[in-house]
Amino acid sequence: MIRVGIVGASGLAGGELIRLVLQHPDLELTYLGGNSSAGKRPAQLHPGLRLDLGLTVEAVDADVLAERCDVVFLATPAPVSAELAGLLADRVNVIDLSGAFRIRTPELHEKWYPKAARSTELADRFVYGVPELIGEQLVGAPLISVPGCYATAITLGLAPLTLGLGLNLKTVVVDGKSGSSGGGLQLRTADLHPLRNGAIAPYAPVGHRHAAEVSDFLERGKPGTVGSLTMSAYGVSHVRGLMASAYVFTDDPVSERDLQRAYLRFYKGSRFVRVRRNNETLIPVPDPQAVLGSNYCDVTVLHDADGGRIVVLAALDNLVKGAAGQALQALNLRYSLPEETGLTMQPVMPA
Amino acid sequence: MIRVGIVGASGLAGGELIRLVLQHPDLELTYLGGNSSAGKRPAQLHPGLRLDLGLTVEAVDADVLAERCDVVFLATPAPVSAELAGLLADRVNVIDLSGAFRIRTPELHEKWYPKAARSTELADRFVYGVPELIGEQLVGAPLISVPGCYATAITLGLAPLTLGLGLNLKTVVVDGKSGSSGGGLQLRTADLHPLRNGAIAPYAPVGHRHAAEVSDFLERGKPGTVGSLTMSAYGVSHVRGLMASAYVFTDDPVSERDLQRAYLRFYKGSRFVRVRRNNETLIPVPDPQAVLGSNYCDVTVLHDADGGRIVVLAALDNLVKGAAGQALQALNLRYSLPEETGLTMQPVMPA
Amino acid sequence: MIRVGIVGASGLAGGELIRLVLQHPDLELTYLGGNSSAGKRPAQLHPGLRLDLGLTVEAVDADVLAERCDVVFLATPAPVSAELAGLLADRVNVIDLSGAFRIRTPELHEKWYPKAARSTELADRFVYGVPELIGEQLVGAPLISVPGCYATAITLGLAPLTLGLGLNLKTVVVDGKSGSSGGGLQLRTADLHPLRNGAIAPYAPVGHRHAAEVSDFLERGKPGTVGSLTMSAYGVSHVRGLMASAYVFTDDPVSERDLQRAYLRFYKGSRFVRVRRNNETLIPVPDPQAVLGSNYCDVTVLHDADGGRIVVLAALDNLVKGAAGQALQALNLRYSLPEETGLTMQPVMPA
Amino acid sequence: MIRVGIVGASGLAGGELIRLVLQHPDLELTYLGGNSSAGKRPAQLHPGLRLDLGLTVEAVDADVLAERCDVVFLATPAPVSAELAGLLADRVNVIDLSGAFRIRTPELHEKWYPKAARSTELADRFVYGVPELIGEQLVGAPLISVPGCYATAITLGLAPLTLGLGLNLKTVVVDGKSGSSGGGLQLRTADLHPLRNGAIAPYAPVGHRHAAEVSDFLERGKPGTVGSLTMSAYGVSHVRGLMASAYVFTDDPVSERDLQRAYLRFYKGSRFVRVRRNNETLIPVPDPQAVLGSNYCDVTVLHDADGGRIVVLAALDNLVKGAAGQALQALNLRYSLPEETGLTMQPVMPA
Repeated sequence: MIRVGIVGASGLAGGELIRLVLQHPDLELTYLGGNSSAGKRPAQLHPGLRLDLGLTVEAVDADVLAERCDVVFLATPAPVSAELAGLLADRVNVIDLSGAFRIRTPELHEKWYPKAARSTELADRFVYGVPELIGEQLVGAPLISVPGCYATAITLGLAPLTLGLGLNLKTVVVDGKSGSSGGGLQLRTADLHPLRNGAIAPYAPVGHRHAAEVSDFLERGKPGTVGSLTMSAYGVSHVRGLMASAYVFTDDPVSERDLQRAYLRFYKGSRFVRVRRNNETLIPVPDPQAVLGSNYCDVTVLHDADGGRIVVLAALDNLVKGAAGQALQALNLRYSLPEETGLTMQPVMPA
Repeated sequence: MIRVGIVGASGLAGGELIRLVLQHPDLELTYLGGNSSAGKRPAQLHPGLRLDLGLTVEAVDADVLAERCDVVFLATPAPVSAELAGLLADRVNVIDLSGAFRIRTPELHEKWYPKAARSTELADRFVYGVPELIGEQLVGAPLISVPGCYATAITLGLAPLTLGLGLNLKTVVVDGKSGSSGGGLQLRTADLHPLRNGAIAPYAPVGHRHAAEVSDFLERGKPGTVGSLTMSAYGVSHVRGLMASAYVFTDDPVSERDLQRAYLRFYKGSRFVRVRRNNETLIPVPDPQAVLGSNYCDVTVLHDADGGRIVVLAALDNLVKGAAGQALQALNLRYSLPEETGLTMQPVMPA
Repeated sequence: MIRVGIVGASGLAGGELIRLVLQHPDLELTYLGGNSSAGKRPAQLHPGLRLDLGLTVEAVDADVLAERCDVVFLATPAPVSAELAGLLADRVNVIDLSGAFRIRTPELHEKWYPKAARSTELADRFVYGVPELIGEQLVGAPLISVPGCYATAITLGLAPLTLGLGLNLKTVVVDGKSGSSGGGLQLRTADLHPLRNGAIAPYAPVGHRHAAEVSDFLERGKPGTVGSLTMSAYGVSHVRGLMASAYVFTDDPVSERDLQRAYLRFYKGSRFVRVRRNNETLIPVPDPQAVLGSNYCDVTVLHDADGGRIVVLAALDNLVKGAAGQALQALNLRYSLPEETGLTMQPVMPA
Repeated sequence: MIRVGIVGASGLAGGELIRLVLQHPDLELTYLGGNSSAGKRPAQLHPGLRLDLGLTVEAVDADVLAERCDVVFLATPAPVSAELAGLLADRVNVIDLSGAFRIRTPELHEKWYPKAARSTELADRFVYGVPELIGEQLVGAPLISVPGCYATAITLGLAPLTLGLGLNLKTVVVDGKSGSSGGGLQLRTADLHPLRNGAIAPYAPVGHRHAAEVSDFLERGKPGTVGSLTMSAYGVSHVRGLMASAYVFTDDPVSERDLQRAYLRFYKGSRFVRVRRNNETLIPVPDPQAVLGSNYCDVTVLHDADGGRIVVLAALDNLVKGAAGQALQALNLRYSLPEETGLTMQPVMPA
């Protein structure tokens, strides 16, 4: 059994990690850390969790973590992760779910995460990327940075165009729609139910940092290129799940059939990315509903012949494939376990 | 008192017309028409309406309509409107809320509304357009075609760029998000609550006909031009209200300050279009929540300096400013009543 | 014009009062008070409100209030209302929306509102009660205490049994279901959208103070009596509107037909209470949906012959008939205006 | 591997059965039946399900079922189940999720399920009951009738009072609140999202047949008795999960402490029933949110000393513990597998 610690146990990603670790046959939960929630039992913080876990949240202590765990998940804000990773990096495997180590280019990192100071040397030791795209790099990796929820959807959506078809994407306009769980449990008036329910909240109409994360990743010496990539993000009226819509303009000729084939080929054999046609089921897909609670990312590509553009839609559960599930997927690959170990749960739909 | 008839009384736009006509001081409701709902009382079809209306829905009869009404609102599907308008055009004022007379160019109309056959001569007699942009044309107009809900939001959002600043908009990417009331009350499995709640449903990822409507309108000999305009539309998890996001690329130089000023100037004195800053209130705006039940359209413009684009957001209540409210606004202008007569209700928020 | 001040302008009841005062033809809004929100414009606090109100929230000052207003609405917590009412009582008309003056019996008041100390003498000067039941007492009343949202629904639901039919109600079990707006905008983790959406939250399974309020009121020398009255209250997954279900056991013989007639008779001529049959429309009623944004209270009575009980259902909009609308209705009666002045808006449905 | 067939594959309970069977290590899905959906692949009907199931829905054929399956789940309407059970009873194990065999008393059955004719002899061969209460009877049982969702919550909630403490319950008033998935996917206007969202729909204010089911079961020679048991049921604005509130009046003396102890003792060792205190976590419990997607039933008991009553709250996921999960739990017991096999998934919360 791999001994697992989770820091940031009171947050939504922390709670989801607990849920998934409990469902994983090769993991043993040995530590829960959180300063504000120290002393609480998990089910007090996450009311769904089984009551008999026999663990209590502890104030964070790097020595204890290093001693009691083989792997530590950091479900903490980026500044906290940056600091903790420095303390833990040489003593235990670390899988960070924050933005602290996602952007490699130092200037870009400082621009988007000014409060998460880190050494370049430490940052360079982290392996970053969606497992489907950089899987082999994860094997044995001691330090892993898990991509952001939107970044995951966008890169999985665009990769068959750039990496698969080698297209040059002149302009990519991303429109992101997510549920309220994306904002965590901070106390903000705008996130109270009366104001958040029924909303279409343009919370980041320009300048979402996941766009920078995606550009930074896609730039790293790959076939196919991305020119301008912009993003606007909205909170809509549900809790869990997001959709990233990428409207892609390219001068390279491509047909609907090419696209469809390229996507199917690119994700052939993938356990978690499902290429779906928009009208293949009784609701239009992709829809985050259809992946709720699971580690799937559903992707649909369409050619808008009239508009001269490609429409790529990617939907995932921001707490699973966009956070805790992807973190476990990375752990599986790091330990050379079958990629889907503990992640075979089917979507809970309707919910 | 102006005598008003409403055909299509059982639908959501029909119900909203009844609500607003009841709140209008110069209108008298004299006829409710609907073939499938004939014999029903209004409150049976629209459970909120006052119980003592003293009217019953009647099977549609053009003769009776012409005799009993000064103005007839058609809240019917486009094919029904196309037919009824032909019967009523020379006998009574008609305000059509369907798509039957929105697109002027015959070929475009046939492409997008193949089932709504109409004579070009009749179509040319209809005045079309958002009142804010074509107000004077409505005075005395006997035949009025009310723009679509999305078309209203998009044209109100873009007009200050094209008509106000005279910009050439090279590429406009529209992403539309709407609640379930946009789909009416047809019995479709995908619209049942268990499947529609929590959804982000990409129901028109390409080929939404409101995009054609907007292009057709914006082409009519105006300063400033629109190159490619594409649209994708999504159903999200609330009932009433929509947001149109327009991502605009232009080669013309423009600054955030220019934009802000241009929008304020363009809608100065407007009763229903409110130019708002994204962060001016305790929730991000525009948000359809903040216009619910009212005839407002809230518009926000931002300059995405990094991305070289303009972001325009427009939110409205699809049943009011996107349908029944705008129809009454047109009626007010047609009869030279103050534009806001009967339309001063404030948004119901939170709801 | 009657000059109106509102204290507690930043809360949900305060915002709703502003909305309704703006729609009332005989009222002029002259003062907005709130200590935490002083300096803000109304639309910053309530994003739907028209932008051009020309008023700014001021720190609360009784002298200014007395000078600038004919009537002051207190939309403040009970302890604040208790204190302010003391300062204002002899200088200006006061309509209090809190619980500070609802319960007449001193011991009961102290039990349920321990932080809202008040003199018995002042409390006795307040007129309390649902306008439909105590209307004539409101004429000219300088001090008015508006009933709680649930108390309104329950007393309107039960009054035809006790006051109309003179029944002795042995046991009344009330089950209340309300949306999240009932909890206001206090920052509580449990009220954040991710945790509140989809909830059935048993927040007051025993000991809701509106039950005490109802008992206290019904006891005041009326025909018919109420034995045990208990209540449990739940937050369910919408924002606005509540339903009170009263399950009534009586030894007095009564038939379904008696009940139906008694309710219709009791509310004959009422502008705001609608007696409805459960299946009279395309959705089951009463349903708070069907009164949203309006001052209606919908009531349905059924006889459960098998179970030997009477089922009474009452639905209302907790911010309108349960707060701000009822306060304006009381004002209308106090000034001998037609009861429905400014309150004729129809429900916004669907929303 | 136990070979499993599911009839009624297109419904919500059918879809949930597929989900859970796929997650069960000892089951092999060998047959999907459904007349209206014959020819469809599972993911077309249930968009979340994995795409590579390799099964297609077939028109229902009892011979094929008997040949290809060891156990057949009937997720069909009661009349269909009644008929199919007759054809299958002697050839294969049957687990019926409908109401066809729940009520034993023939007169009661005919009253509540007039369209589900069955022979008394066949009915008597079915084992009925919540596994926690009749577990041993399920071992080896060839014919099993799974209790209704509300009936499960109510009997689990009341059993510690009657079976545990031996109380005589004079009057039990049940108030049920459920999400829209309880109504399935039938096309009804009232269940369209615009009308169902935001609703508190009193769809069964009197005469819910699960009340009859509970009474019928509790009457079968048990210590403690139930006098009058009445029920009213409401649809509220979420999709999955229900709460049954039982307001219990008894003349037997009992204290809060007795109650708490009795419930803990009664469900000690239970894998799926969790006895919880109302305020033990950051949201009030029980709440169906906290069991979503899982087989848990959360139960809370309170003593309302002022009101002289006991308040029992029970929350479960109507598609899992209220249907498919409980059916698999019964199967586990029938085959003497550990009760929780395939049912250890943790709740998906928030969702």
